[in-house]
Amino acid sequence: MAIVVQKYGGSSVADADKIRNVACRIAASFKKGKKVVVVVSAMGDTTDDLIELANKINPNPMAREMDLLLSTGEIVSSTLLAMALHAMGFKAIALSGQQAGISTDSAFSRARITGVEPERIIKELDKGNIVIVAGFQGITPDNDIATLGRGGSDTTAVALAASLKAGVCEIYTDVEGVYTADPRLVPKARKLEVIGYEEMLEMANSGARVMHHRSVELGQVFDIPILVASSMVEKPGTIIRGGENMEQKNKVRGIAHDMDVAKITITGVPDRPGVAAAIFTPLAKAGISVDTIVQNAGANNITDLTFTIIKKDTPRAMKIIGPVAREIGAKECISDSKLGKVSIIGTGMQNTPGYAAKMFQTLFEQDINIQLITTSEIRITCIIAEDKVKEAVKALHKAFELHKG
Amino acid sequence: MAIVVQKYGGSSVADADKIRNVACRIAASFKKGKKVVVVVSAMGDTTDDLIELANKINPNPMAREMDLLLSTGEIVSSTLLAMALHAMGFKAIALSGQQAGISTDSAFSRARITGVEPERIIKELDKGNIVIVAGFQGITPDNDIATLGRGGSDTTAVALAASLKAGVCEIYTDVEGVYTADPRLVPKARKLEVIGYEEMLEMANSGARVMHHRSVELGQVFDIPILVASSMVEKPGTIIRGGENMEQKNKVRGIAHDMDVAKITITGVPDRPGVAAAIFTPLAKAGISVDTIVQNAGANNITDLTFTIIKKDTPRAMKIIGPVAREIGAKECISDSKLGKVSIIGTGMQNTPGYAAKMFQTLFEQDINIQLITTSEIRITCIIAEDKVKEAVKALHKAFELHKG
Repeated sequence: MAIVVQKYGGSSVADADKIRNVACRIAASFKKGKKVVVVVSAMGDTTDDLIELANKINPNPMAREMDLLLSTGEIVSSTLLAMALHAMGFKAIALSGQQAGISTDSAFSRARITGVEPERIIKELDKGNIVIVAGFQGITPDNDIATLGRGGSDTTAVALAASLKAGVCEIYTDVEGVYTADPRLVPKARKLEVIGYEEMLEMANSGARVMHHRSVELGQVFDIPILVASSMVEKPGTIIRGGENMEQKNKVRGIAHDMDVAKITITGVPDRPGVAAAIFTPLAKAGISVDTIVQNAGANNITDLTFTIIKKDTPRAMKIIGPVAREIGAKECISDSKLGKVSIIGTGMQNTPGYAAKMFQTLFEQDINIQLITTSEIRITCIIAEDKVKEAVKALHKAFELHKG
Repeated sequence: MAIVVQKYGGSSVADADKIRNVACRIAASFKKGKKVVVVVSAMGDTTDDLIELANKINPNPMAREMDLLLSTGEIVSSTLLAMALHAMGFKAIALSGQQAGISTDSAFSRARITGVEPERIIKELDKGNIVIVAGFQGITPDNDIATLGRGGSDTTAVALAASLKAGVCEIYTDVEGVYTADPRLVPKARKLEVIGYEEMLEMANSGARVMHHRSVELGQVFDIPILVASSMVEKPGTIIRGGENMEQKNKVRGIAHDMDVAKITITGVPDRPGVAAAIFTPLAKAGISVDTIVQNAGANNITDLTFTIIKKDTPRAMKIIGPVAREIGAKECISDSKLGKVSIIGTGMQNTPGYAAKMFQTLFEQDINIQLITTSEIRITCIIAEDKVKEAVKALHKAFELHKG
């Protein structure tokens, strides 16, 4: 009998009525003769509420205790969902991450799944149970609870699908799929039927919120097709998968954007070995994630070095970088927190010239100044002013004719 | 170094300020050079709120899922308490019941502790940590979470004290100790310095809410002295313990009362073997707990049988008993849900006549009708009208001169 793994996000289980609605959808899959494993996030704002409560008591709580605290959110929603299925006459059992056999490393708040021992899940499926697993969590080698960080429940779902050899991992969420651009910005944005793992990864890394990159990576490694679809309406979603059978007609597949970009530039940096390490090692130690790094080669062995971070890290990063800049003999540090980024993504762009030029021309026509440019094999990203992001996305969507499909 | 086990109830950790207050008290014990293990209940009304949420989704939730759900309440409060101690500069670690090594049987919602493996707690204490344990829960042989039912966190605390060979188990709560009677009913009620396990058990079974009988039983079995004291004010509480050194001057130690009593009488019951089993087996199967049973021997092998239950079980019990009564050829079933009970308790009463007579005389002088009488070696209980309980407690407290100490 085929196993299907479904994941429902926090907004899909935000209250008793929504939980009942999700239970109906799960029951429909079960009645089709499938063995159903469900991964569930914490209800609505539960996680944020718990974080707020913790911060009232300790503004800098220890990660181990924070993880143990936050793990309760998914246990609550998983038990309630099992109860809803019982009330409808179905056999169901709720399992914590530990009970579901999910092992992680000890990197609290951003743990990685190191293994899944699905024996308990299989035993419960064989008893005829629908198995509801608390997402976002696992157990460390020291028998502590660790959480997986942002997008953690998606990662749980894909890991379970891989270990259970499920045919597909279905991610039900508050959007209807993956769009060519954010439909709130571009009314003509089109839902994609299929997208490749690589393209989805670049979309996620470039600001598309629909899937976290780690779950897509995991899907790619284990070759698990991931369906992203709405938990509210019955409409076909988007399949994320590998293989040749991609829509290749339009070589740009989507436009991603991100409003949360700040830039720090260190000017007059002596161009000698060890300088980059001197700057980025203390940032990494402080847990500040650096996105783009650009170094402009200058004259006289002097260079300017620019990197981007998320906005809220700017004050902390400037505090760390100030003394370092003085030590290495740089001129000054300048920050700009009013930036955003816009990216065009598509495997079809590989080895095909003209896409970058068309992107820059389009932005130029909108009178949008490009501050930084970075590229990967299947992505071109421009850092621009935050208040220009919206019109940039619209203009690029039109220029690359993404509404046409 | 001496280990002390402390337990704080839900009202003591109901909000961030109260959690900080409890952290200060724990820190004070730690600074005296003790190794401190703390057991904590869920914050304020958390457990009731979770039950209400579950009932919205399923009016008759499965006990296994309910236990997994409710266990989160104590995990939340234990992590927050650890965070409060961190914020004050102390090393602390929060452990779930499973992490603390607490094993239970599989009787969900009313599980019994079957063993404690305190290795992790000892390891954390040796690292200099204050150890905060989520009360009320443990792990079954099937790796499921089970809760211990009413008074569960007290039981956790006493079990840990026993397994860690702690000198004392300190229960901090919203009352200042064990009183000769409920101070809300009898303003002259006196706090006892010491009370024996047996007396405390009879008090608890007779309606005194301060300690649940299971934790007292466990204290008696492992000979762990239990201190009951206020979590809010610094005042000596009451020590529950064994041994000879009891206050024996006044032979009645306390008056307990319980407003939650209903009575069912089956009249005209044929007095033959198997009748009691026919009546009480279906009640036990329905989970209805029967307190007092009285059978009045009658003429012609016909008898009246009366038993008491808690009020809310009355309709269900009548429904079960009706057909049984007809089957065994009894005359009729009558219920009365407006009853209460009052008890006098004291080991000093053993083998000393006159106490029962004095109790009955006192109630007679108040014009209170006694409906049923039951006794143990150290207790005499009268079932009376609910609206007479308050004046009965007052009159008995005065008659036995309990205010004099």
